[in-house]
Amino acid sequence: MVNYPHHLIRKQAAPASRKNTKSTINFANRGMSFEAAINETNNYYLSRDIAVVHKKPTPIQIVKVDYPKRSRAKIVEAYFRQASTTDYSGVYKGRYIDFEAKETRQKTSMPLKNFHAHQIEHMKHVLKQDGICFVLLHFSTLKETYFLPASALVDFYQINLGTKSMPLDYIRKNGYMVTTSSLPQVPYLDIIDQKILGGDHN
Amino acid sequence: MVNYPHHLIRKQAAPASRKNTKSTINFANRGMSFEAAINETNNYYLSRDIAVVHKKPTPIQIVKVDYPKRSRAKIVEAYFRQASTTDYSGVYKGRYIDFEAKETRQKTSMPLKNFHAHQIEHMKHVLKQDGICFVLLHFSTLKETYFLPASALVDFYQINLGTKSMPLDYIRKNGYMVTTSSLPQVPYLDIIDQKILGGDHN
Repeated sequence: MVNYPHHLIRKQAAPASRKNTKSTINFANRGMSFEAAINETNNYYLSRDIAVVHKKPTPIQIVKVDYPKRSRAKIVEAYFRQASTTDYSGVYKGRYIDFEAKETRQKTSMPLKNFHAHQIEHMKHVLKQDGICFVLLHFSTLKETYFLPASALVDFYQINLGTKSMPLDYIRKNGYMVTTSSLPQVPYLDIIDQKILGGDHN
Repeated sequence: MVNYPHHLIRKQAAPASRKNTKSTINFANRGMSFEAAINETNNYYLSRDIAVVHKKPTPIQIVKVDYPKRSRAKIVEAYFRQASTTDYSGVYKGRYIDFEAKETRQKTSMPLKNFHAHQIEHMKHVLKQDGICFVLLHFSTLKETYFLPASALVDFYQINLGTKSMPLDYIRKNGYMVTTSSLPQVPYLDIIDQKILGGDHN
């Protein structure tokens, strides 16, 4: 993996008034969660025929359903199941893309408990099939968002078994900062264009 | 779209004892539903690193959750939501694949009520992004399974608005028969290899 200075991948259209590396307008300022910002980003991409990416429904184990007369079926007992894949998947320029998004208030690392062993396994499978697989990591206190290729997460996970968190330094070294903006809010396809499909990295 | 005689795409490794165009061993003979057969097929592909395809969880609208002490969260009121995308998606040779699977007991047509308007919209979006999109249609009484490119379904749907079903003749003319077997049971990737990625059709 080739590492790039983060400033090189910052959005070129960023207004001149942005003096530092942190975005001045983003979803956090607007009181929006990272997940909501990603969903809005996906809606933006979909509405402009740029990409089709959806969040998968939460997996639920249904135990009991009532079928009231003249009314729709009502689930009365069900439980949350752990996801066996990542949350987001879709298609961009014919390619399969697959990612997970995580947010933390910590300033120096991302807790690894955010990723389950079977999600890591899923990422390994996707990479073997030449899918574009990554994680979007948002550090809410720092207001910084990173695109980390799944290969870097898998490597870290395998080498650091038992470690409780992935240092921000590692993420900065192996990933790319995503310049959040107002529209789309988390333009992760820019990173895919520049760093993955651009051919200068895999 | 180029149409091929169905016998040309039948599995070459089919045992000589199969005298007609219908499979003699398949999931139906084993009392298995079409959906279960597809899930097993996907497990087969996954376990052999051939493709990563998962069924999306059923979308559920959660209204009320109880959090009992010393016990996991229990959903006590929830409702089924209509799917806005197709049921299956994944990656094969780097390409995004996306499909819906439907079964009917009818012998001459597939009821269109099986496909919702927003699923058709989703298919159109996927096709625009150059994803490999199709439907797998199983006629349980006939014991015949077809791979119909989504473009053919979308065309039919748009031209025949208000029609209640899609004739089997149309499916045979615009799709490909899938030779069901014992392992994998619904080898739809064979059709993708031969008809979609083979370059003789789009």
